[in-house]
Amino acid sequence: MEVRLRLGLAYDGSDFSGWARQPGRRTVQEAVETALGLLLHLADPPALTVAGRTDAGVHARGQVAHADVPAAAWAPVAPVALRGLAGLLPPDVRARSISVAPDGFDARFSALWRRYSYRICDDPRAADPLRRGDTLWYPRMLDASRMNEAARALVGEHDFAAFCRRREGASTVRNLIRLDWARQPSGEVVAEVVADAFCHNMVRALVGALLAAGDGRRPAQWPGQVLAAGVRDPAVHVAPPHALCLEEVRYPADSELANRAAATRRRR
Amino acid sequence: MEVRLRLGLAYDGSDFSGWARQPGRRTVQEAVETALGLLLHLADPPALTVAGRTDAGVHARGQVAHADVPAAAWAPVAPVALRGLAGLLPPDVRARSISVAPDGFDARFSALWRRYSYRICDDPRAADPLRRGDTLWYPRMLDASRMNEAARALVGEHDFAAFCRRREGASTVRNLIRLDWARQPSGEVVAEVVADAFCHNMVRALVGALLAAGDGRRPAQWPGQVLAAGVRDPAVHVAPPHALCLEEVRYPADSELANRAAATRRRR
Repeated sequence: MEVRLRLGLAYDGSDFSGWARQPGRRTVQEAVETALGLLLHLADPPALTVAGRTDAGVHARGQVAHADVPAAAWAPVAPVALRGLAGLLPPDVRARSISVAPDGFDARFSALWRRYSYRICDDPRAADPLRRGDTLWYPRMLDASRMNEAARALVGEHDFAAFCRRREGASTVRNLIRLDWARQPSGEVVAEVVADAFCHNMVRALVGALLAAGDGRRPAQWPGQVLAAGVRDPAVHVAPPHALCLEEVRYPADSELANRAAATRRRR
Repeated sequence: MEVRLRLGLAYDGSDFSGWARQPGRRTVQEAVETALGLLLHLADPPALTVAGRTDAGVHARGQVAHADVPAAAWAPVAPVALRGLAGLLPPDVRARSISVAPDGFDARFSALWRRYSYRICDDPRAADPLRRGDTLWYPRMLDASRMNEAARALVGEHDFAAFCRRREGASTVRNLIRLDWARQPSGEVVAEVVADAFCHNMVRALVGALLAAGDGRRPAQWPGQVLAAGVRDPAVHVAPPHALCLEEVRYPADSELANRAAATRRRR
């Protein structure tokens, strides 16, 4: 008999070639699957399904994954699993939670939305070398309210083909629920970006377009015009990965998990 | 004619052998003096006087230093000094401010107080690998209110000999103005420690004693008993440097700078 485990994960993406396993590369998936296999004393590490397949260099504080494992392997280690994983994982990955998932849970397909942050420092007076691993240094001053004005045209359900790396046959329609910039008390400008799902490179391309509006190189209307044009615009520079962090994945109430997963699969 | 420059500095102490110059070691002082010499086109880098001589591995967001430099070298670079220094400093040090200091200013002797933070994560559910460079991972749960109770006996003007590495003839009397622990929304336990000045190792020794009270190994009265005993207690483990950060140095109003410096020098 198998049980489905739900894991909450945080990682520093700096030294990983992203989430997804690749032969010969150090990936978060490989690190977590290996540690989980050791924790459960399994000959073969269990396979993880993840909510957000983060790119190389992208961080997470709220990543969610699931794995189906033998119930007999889980039961004896359950009480010590979290601290056990801390001893088995490399220092740049931590499990924040691990438990048997409710019925119908699928880390990828049950998710209602994903929330990312993008962190920028544009002011030498606020420079913090301790945060240089997850903050973009931007050499021009940014106008956060102008970036919010530009972002308003992007929020809602749209075809985000202009901001996605195209994959044959895959839909690029997404529901962008929120995109807000806020100047922090510490001086940084941080975006919160929420969507039902993101296509590849989408957050970083949106940020790249908004930076051009925020520093005055482009009018505030420009990101909305790029969206409406519906094709990738070489003038949109995809922002660097190291300032991007997956902060949260939200799921519906337990009773809705299976319905949500079925609906997401139908819409693919 | 010389002018005295006041610098605000932030650094990641991980890869430095502390602030103070040492032959053959990478130090913050050497890095900043070198960059300042290049900025000002001086044959010999100017000497810096600093508010807090941080140890190896200790960070800063609010360090303050001064240097006396030829007025003729400063005037032409003044308008571009901050962004110029950003290009001349290594990525783990940033100047947040640089300007001509008011009359009577001395980075070390004019200071009213120094504020440090000490950042601890004791909960796997809050583990953040992105902050592992400035956060102590503590394997037992801490009771922040018990640590605050223990800290109350330490606040005030005392002879902190029990918490200082002794130097021949130097006073170990200090005024500990504040020592508060607070559980953050993100889960970490962070101390704010303010004193007129600190002797060597003092914050880390105070934190070490409070950790023993906070995890239940010692009663809440113990740190106060160690203070009263007045001699170093081998049971006090000096806490690691990488979770310590100099956050702020406070100076009096400009009109009081010279008086304060003179008074501090008299009390040494």
